[in-house]
Amino acid sequence: MAHPSINLRERLADAKPFFFSWATAPSAVLAGQMARLPFEAVCIDMQHGLTGFPDAVEMAPAIVAQDKPVIIRVLWNEPGIIGKCLDGGAWGIVCPMVNNRAEAQALATACLYPPAGKRSNGPIRAAMYGEASNYQKIANDEVLVIPMIETQEGIDNIDEILSVPGISGIYIGPSDMGLSLGMIPILDREEPNILAIYEKLLASCKKHGKFAGLHNGTSAYAARMIGMGFRFVTIANDSGLMARMARSEVAATRKAAGDVAS
Amino acid sequence: MAHPSINLRERLADAKPFFFSWATAPSAVLAGQMARLPFEAVCIDMQHGLTGFPDAVEMAPAIVAQDKPVIIRVLWNEPGIIGKCLDGGAWGIVCPMVNNRAEAQALATACLYPPAGKRSNGPIRAAMYGEASNYQKIANDEVLVIPMIETQEGIDNIDEILSVPGISGIYIGPSDMGLSLGMIPILDREEPNILAIYEKLLASCKKHGKFAGLHNGTSAYAARMIGMGFRFVTIANDSGLMARMARSEVAATRKAAGDVAS
Amino acid sequence: MAHPSINLRERLADAKPFFFSWATAPSAVLAGQMARLPFEAVCIDMQHGLTGFPDAVEMAPAIVAQDKPVIIRVLWNEPGIIGKCLDGGAWGIVCPMVNNRAEAQALATACLYPPAGKRSNGPIRAAMYGEASNYQKIANDEVLVIPMIETQEGIDNIDEILSVPGISGIYIGPSDMGLSLGMIPILDREEPNILAIYEKLLASCKKHGKFAGLHNGTSAYAARMIGMGFRFVTIANDSGLMARMARSEVAATRKAAGDVAS
Amino acid sequence: MAHPSINLRERLADAKPFFFSWATAPSAVLAGQMARLPFEAVCIDMQHGLTGFPDAVEMAPAIVAQDKPVIIRVLWNEPGIIGKCLDGGAWGIVCPMVNNRAEAQALATACLYPPAGKRSNGPIRAAMYGEASNYQKIANDEVLVIPMIETQEGIDNIDEILSVPGISGIYIGPSDMGLSLGMIPILDREEPNILAIYEKLLASCKKHGKFAGLHNGTSAYAARMIGMGFRFVTIANDSGLMARMARSEVAATRKAAGDVAS
Amino acid sequence: MAHPSINLRERLADAKPFFFSWATAPSAVLAGQMARLPFEAVCIDMQHGLTGFPDAVEMAPAIVAQDKPVIIRVLWNEPGIIGKCLDGGAWGIVCPMVNNRAEAQALATACLYPPAGKRSNGPIRAAMYGEASNYQKIANDEVLVIPMIETQEGIDNIDEILSVPGISGIYIGPSDMGLSLGMIPILDREEPNILAIYEKLLASCKKHGKFAGLHNGTSAYAARMIGMGFRFVTIANDSGLMARMARSEVAATRKAAGDVAS
Amino acid sequence: MAHPSINLRERLADAKPFFFSWATAPSAVLAGQMARLPFEAVCIDMQHGLTGFPDAVEMAPAIVAQDKPVIIRVLWNEPGIIGKCLDGGAWGIVCPMVNNRAEAQALATACLYPPAGKRSNGPIRAAMYGEASNYQKIANDEVLVIPMIETQEGIDNIDEILSVPGISGIYIGPSDMGLSLGMIPILDREEPNILAIYEKLLASCKKHGKFAGLHNGTSAYAARMIGMGFRFVTIANDSGLMARMARSEVAATRKAAGDVAS
Repeated sequence: MAHPSINLRERLADAKPFFFSWATAPSAVLAGQMARLPFEAVCIDMQHGLTGFPDAVEMAPAIVAQDKPVIIRVLWNEPGIIGKCLDGGAWGIVCPMVNNRAEAQALATACLYPPAGKRSNGPIRAAMYGEASNYQKIANDEVLVIPMIETQEGIDNIDEILSVPGISGIYIGPSDMGLSLGMIPILDREEPNILAIYEKLLASCKKHGKFAGLHNGTSAYAARMIGMGFRFVTIANDSGLMARMARSEVAATRKAAGDVAS
Repeated sequence: MAHPSINLRERLADAKPFFFSWATAPSAVLAGQMARLPFEAVCIDMQHGLTGFPDAVEMAPAIVAQDKPVIIRVLWNEPGIIGKCLDGGAWGIVCPMVNNRAEAQALATACLYPPAGKRSNGPIRAAMYGEASNYQKIANDEVLVIPMIETQEGIDNIDEILSVPGISGIYIGPSDMGLSLGMIPILDREEPNILAIYEKLLASCKKHGKFAGLHNGTSAYAARMIGMGFRFVTIANDSGLMARMARSEVAATRKAAGDVAS
Repeated sequence: MAHPSINLRERLADAKPFFFSWATAPSAVLAGQMARLPFEAVCIDMQHGLTGFPDAVEMAPAIVAQDKPVIIRVLWNEPGIIGKCLDGGAWGIVCPMVNNRAEAQALATACLYPPAGKRSNGPIRAAMYGEASNYQKIANDEVLVIPMIETQEGIDNIDEILSVPGISGIYIGPSDMGLSLGMIPILDREEPNILAIYEKLLASCKKHGKFAGLHNGTSAYAARMIGMGFRFVTIANDSGLMARMARSEVAATRKAAGDVAS
Repeated sequence: MAHPSINLRERLADAKPFFFSWATAPSAVLAGQMARLPFEAVCIDMQHGLTGFPDAVEMAPAIVAQDKPVIIRVLWNEPGIIGKCLDGGAWGIVCPMVNNRAEAQALATACLYPPAGKRSNGPIRAAMYGEASNYQKIANDEVLVIPMIETQEGIDNIDEILSVPGISGIYIGPSDMGLSLGMIPILDREEPNILAIYEKLLASCKKHGKFAGLHNGTSAYAARMIGMGFRFVTIANDSGLMARMARSEVAATRKAAGDVAS
Repeated sequence: MAHPSINLRERLADAKPFFFSWATAPSAVLAGQMARLPFEAVCIDMQHGLTGFPDAVEMAPAIVAQDKPVIIRVLWNEPGIIGKCLDGGAWGIVCPMVNNRAEAQALATACLYPPAGKRSNGPIRAAMYGEASNYQKIANDEVLVIPMIETQEGIDNIDEILSVPGISGIYIGPSDMGLSLGMIPILDREEPNILAIYEKLLASCKKHGKFAGLHNGTSAYAARMIGMGFRFVTIANDSGLMARMARSEVAATRKAAGDVAS
Repeated sequence: MAHPSINLRERLADAKPFFFSWATAPSAVLAGQMARLPFEAVCIDMQHGLTGFPDAVEMAPAIVAQDKPVIIRVLWNEPGIIGKCLDGGAWGIVCPMVNNRAEAQALATACLYPPAGKRSNGPIRAAMYGEASNYQKIANDEVLVIPMIETQEGIDNIDEILSVPGISGIYIGPSDMGLSLGMIPILDREEPNILAIYEKLLASCKKHGKFAGLHNGTSAYAARMIGMGFRFVTIANDSGLMARMARSEVAATRKAAGDVAS
C-alpha cells in the first residue's frame, strides 16, 4: 500500500482543495464509513469530539483500510499526546489555540524528530502505514503540522507563527474566533471584520507558502471560501451530516404522507 | 420519567405511523445523537449492524437519555439473547426470518413472562426505565414482539403467525424478501408481485388488528407506503444518512468551486 | 499460584457453605473489588447481568488477581458459549432452565472433555490459572457443572437430572421458579409449597451426593437455608449491595441532619 | 427533558444540602444504577477512580437517563481535559489541588466561555442535555466550578481563591488535607485543628456567598457536617458502598448459620 | 483497493499453500501487526481465542489496512453469528465440529445468499472491502466455507460433507481429533492412525477438488504436511509466537550473562 | 497474595538483573500471557505503545493474576496521570525525557506521598494488590521512580538527577538517545561515544547506589550490557517477539516445503 499521506501532499502541491470531515463519534465503524466518502482525509476530533486515545487507536486502521490518511485534532498543545497520536498513525496534527511563536514552536517541536524537533522515537503503528523501513526518514517531510488560529492574539501573530520551521499551514475555527472576539459562536460567518481577518490570514499564508483551512457549514459557503483561497476544507461532521439528512427525510415523509403522519 | 415505551403504544393506538432508523454503528454517542432526531424510537440493529451485546448495553441509556424507547433487532430467534436484550432495556424486539407458527410462538415465548411465555425474571436495567416497582406487571403488555416476514414461507403462513398470542405486528425486509424470491436485493421495490405481497400482508395485519412495518430508502416511497397502510416506518440508517448528505454536500461544493476543486 | 478452584472443592468436600455474589455490571474494576470481599467465589452473570463475553474476558483476571475462582452463569444451554467461557477462565458453569435429563446431558457434554463430553480443546486462558501443564487432565474433575432448576418440569425430573454423570450440583432461582408456578417473582420465599419443593430438591441432592444452591436476598433467610441444607449460597449482587447501603446511609444522614436536608 | 443541572442549582439556592457519591468504576451500567439512588447527582471520579475519558463518555448518558446531572472530578487542572469533560456532558467540574488565585483563575478560565474564560466552543453532547438552542448562553451560569482545597497553601489563600469570578464553591478532601499537614489519610476527622480549618473555610465561603463540600465516610459524621454548614455532601463511593453491605451481610449469615458456615 | 480475498483464491487456484495464524487476543492493534507478517491471511479465532464479536469488528479493518483478508473461526454452527461475521468483513468462515452432511449443509446455507443458501442481505462492512457495487454478486463465489473435521463421525462422513455444494475445503484440528479418538490433545501428531486419517481426508479432498488445512506447531512438521498435500496451513497463534521467542531470548540472555542473571 | 513488588525489590537488593518486556498492545489478554513468561515484571507502555489509561486499567489485573508486578511507562512527566497510574496498580513509573534536577524532582513529587512528595491519596486499586491496610505506609518505599535519560542535557545532569531523593534508578532509551545526538534511531548501539555515555551513566548510578536499565534488541547484546552493569533489562516488546518468531517459522516452512510454497 502506498502510504496514505500521499494524496494530501499531492493535492496541496497542486493547490487543489482537499475536503475532509470531523469524526466526532468514538467509533471505528463510523470512521471507516466516513473514509469511503468523497473526502481526501478523515480527521479524528479529539478536542470537541467524544473520542479518547483508545478510540483513535481503533479508528485509525478503519480509515487506512479505505486508503485515506488519518489526521487528528488533539486536545491541547502537549508533546506527550501529540507524539502518541503520531505513533498511532496520524499523518497530520491540528492543534487548537495556538496564539504566538512560542506555542507554534512547541507544536512543531512535538511533531518533528530531531534535529528539527524533539519527538520521541517509537512509531509503533505509523511505521506500518508508510514503508516500514523508512518512516523515520520521511516523517518530518510528510507529517502536517497545523496550528489553529482562533484568537486576536493568534491573528496578530500570524506572521511569526507561520515563520516557525515545520508549520505546514493553519486552520481556522470560525465559532471560537467569533467567541473570542465577542460575537456569537456560529459557522459560515458574514461579518465584514471576520472576512477581513480571513483575507489577512490568507495573505500571510500565501506569503509564507503555506495553506489555510476553514471549517464550513454549507457547500455554498465552502465554495466561496475555496474561491477566496482556502484549501483545507472541512464540511460538517459525522453526526451533523446524519442529522441534516434525517431531519430532511422525515419531514419530507411526514409532509407527503399527510395528516396521518403528523 | 414516564417509561419510554409510552409514545410507541400511543401512536399505534391512534393508527399514526411512527418513524425510526437503524443504529448500526456500535456507538453510544451516535445512538444518542440519533435519538435526538425526529424519530419516535431508535432500533439497535444487532443483525446486520456491527453492534454486539456490550455495545447495546452502552447504547440503550444514551437513547433513553433523550426520552426515546429502545428497540433491538436481534441476531436470531434465540431465547437467551432475546431475554438479555429485554433485560438490558429494549421495549421492542424485531426478529429476523420468522417463517411459521412454531417460530412465531418461540419468539413470543422468549419475549413474555409466564404464563404467556417463558422469559426468565431479571430485568436488571429494564426495570430502571419503567417504574421500577411494576415492570414485571406491565412488561407483557408493553413489549413489542415483531417477527420479520422475509420469505415465501413466511408470506404463506402470515395468518398463522399473526394469530400467535403476543405478536404485536410484523416487519418486512424488502431486500431479503426479494432475494429469497429470486430477485436482486434492493429497497423501495416496484415489482407488482412484491406490491401484491405487501397488500396481502397488510390485509392480514388489519384482520388481526396488528401493525405492519417496512424498511424504506426514500421519503417519497415511505410516504406512499404509509398511504398503503404501513405504520412502523424505517428510513435508512445512521451511516447511510451521513453518507447521503456528505456525498451531496461535497459534490455541491466541488461544483460550485469549479475547476480548482476537481 | 495454586489454581483457584481449590477452595471451592475443599469447602464442598467439607460440606461447608460457600458464599458468592453476582457480578452483573460489565466492569473488571468492580469484579475485582467484589473478589476482595469475604466471598469464596465471584459469579459473572451473563444471563441477567449486563455482561457480554468481551466483558467476562476482562473480569476474569481481576477476580483471579484476588485469588478467587471465577464462575459464570451462561446465557443459555449452548455448547459454543459454554466452552468459550471455560476456555476464558471459568471453573464453574451455572446454566439456566435445565428441565430434564437431555438438557442436563447436553450441559455436561458441553462442559467436559472427551470421553466424558465433547468440549473442544483450547483452554487458552484457563490453562494459565491452573498449572499449565496439566489443565486438560484435571479439568473434568475440577469444573463445576451446575444446572438451574426453575420449572415444574425440572422439579419433576430432579432425579434424572442429578443422575447425569458430571453434574456437580444444582442451583435454584426462586423468582423464576415462582413465576413458572404462577406466583410473583420474589426472593426469600415463604410459600409452603415452595419450601416443600426445596426439601424435595435437597433430599434428591443428598441422595445423589450433590450440593444445592440458592439465591437469597437477606442474611437471615440465607442462614435458615444453610440450616436446611443449601451450601452454594448467593447473597444479592453488586449493584443491589451498593444500593442498599446507599439508601440506608443517605436516609440516615437526612434524618440526622434534620429539616435542612429534607 | 428539563436540563439536568436544575436540581443542583435549585437546592443550592435554597441552601439545602445535596448528596452525591463517587462513581469510581468505569461502568455505564453501575453509574446508571447509582443515578437511581437518592442522590442529587453522580460525580464521575477521573482522579482516583479508574475511569478514563472514554469511560466518562459512556457513563454520562446512563446518569442523564435517570434525570440526574453529571459532575466530573478531573485528573488535573488542565484546560484541554476540562473543556472536553464539559463538552461531554458534565455540568460541574471538581478540580484537585487548587492552591492559590492563579490556579483558581486557570480553572475558571478553562470552565467558562469568553469573555469570562477561554473555553473553546463545541458542546457536542452538553448541548443535547440542555435545550440545544441556548446551551452556550446558559453554560457560564449553570456550570459549577469547584476547586478542591487540600493543602496549607490552599487554606491560606481561601479568600483569594473564592474571590475569583466564576468559582461556585469549594470541596475538601479530608484525607489529602490530613496527609499534606503531616497526618494519616483518613475520613471523618476529629482533630481539633482540622475542624478549625473547616470552620475557617466555611466562614470564608459564607462571606463570599459560595457553598462548601466535604467527603464523608459515615452518615453520622455527614449529618454533623451539614449542621456545621457543608452543603455539597459526598457519601462514600460505588465499591465502598457495595463492600460495606457485603461484609455486613456475609458476616451476619455466617453468624446466624453457626458452625457449619465458619 | 482490490478486494482482499483475491490472494486467497489465487493461491488456491495455483495449488500453492497459504499460511496464516490465529489472532486469539481481542486486540485490533495486535491483529494489525500480525497482518504485516508474511502470512496470506489472518484468522480471528472466536472459538478458543478470547475474542467476541465487538472485538472482531475492531480487528477486521486493522487486518484489511494491511491488504490481508479476514477469516473468522466462529464459535459454533449458528446462522446468526455466521451471517454477522460475514457482514462484518470476513471472507472465510472456519466452523468447528462439522460431523455430517446435515451440519455441512447448515454451514453452507448460513454462508451463502439465496438461492444457494439463506444468508440474509446486509453486508454493511463486507461491501466496503470489495467493490461496493457488486458485493452481493461475488460473495457466493468468493467466501470460503470451511468445516472442521475433528471427530470419527466427521472422518466417516467426509465424502458426504465435501459433496455439499458451497463447501470450499476442510480444516483439521489435531488436538481435538486426538481427544475425540481417545488420545491426548497435542499438535504435530505422529500416531500412524492419525496420519492414515490425514491421508484419507486428503484423498477425499482431492477427489472433490477441495483444499485441506491443518493446524501446525512447528515449521518442520508444517513443511512435511505441505508435502503431503495440505494447502491451508496454520502456524501457531499470536501469543504462542510471542511466548516462544520470549522464552528463547530470556534464556539465552540469562545463560550468556552467567551467574549474575540466574 | 504477597504484594507483587516484592520480587523487584529483592532482586535489586541482590544486584540481580531483572528482565521485563513492553506491553504495547492495549490487550489484557496479551498482557496476561506476557506475565506468564520468564520476566520479573511487565511494563505497560503508555508512551509509544498504543495503550491508553482505560487499557492499562484492564491490563494491570491480568498481570497481577500471574503474580507479577506492573510497571507503567507514562506518556509524559505530568502529576495527574502519574498518580492515576499508581492508584491503578503500578508499582513502578518509567518517565520519558527527564533532563535535569527540576524534572527529576517533579517526577519524584508526583510519585511519592507527603511529606516526600505531593501524590494525592486514593490508591483505589493499588491498595488491593498490597496488603490493604498498609499501602500508604509502604508505598513511598516500594514504588520505583525511574526517569529516562535520553538527551545530552540528561547525560550532563546525571548526578543532579540521581541525587534527587526518591529516584530509584534510571532507564536509557538507545534510539532516542541516538536521535537526540544526531544519529539514527536504533537499538544495540556500538558507537564508542554511546558506549562511553553508558559507562558514565553506570558509574554515576553506582556512586549514588541506584540501578540502571536499558532497552535491548537481542540476547547477546543484553548479556553484554548486564556484564557492563545494567540490571533493569528490557528485551523487545509483545508484537516484536511475535513478529520475529513468525517470520522465522514461516520462512523455515517455505524453505523446507520447497517450490510449492514459494
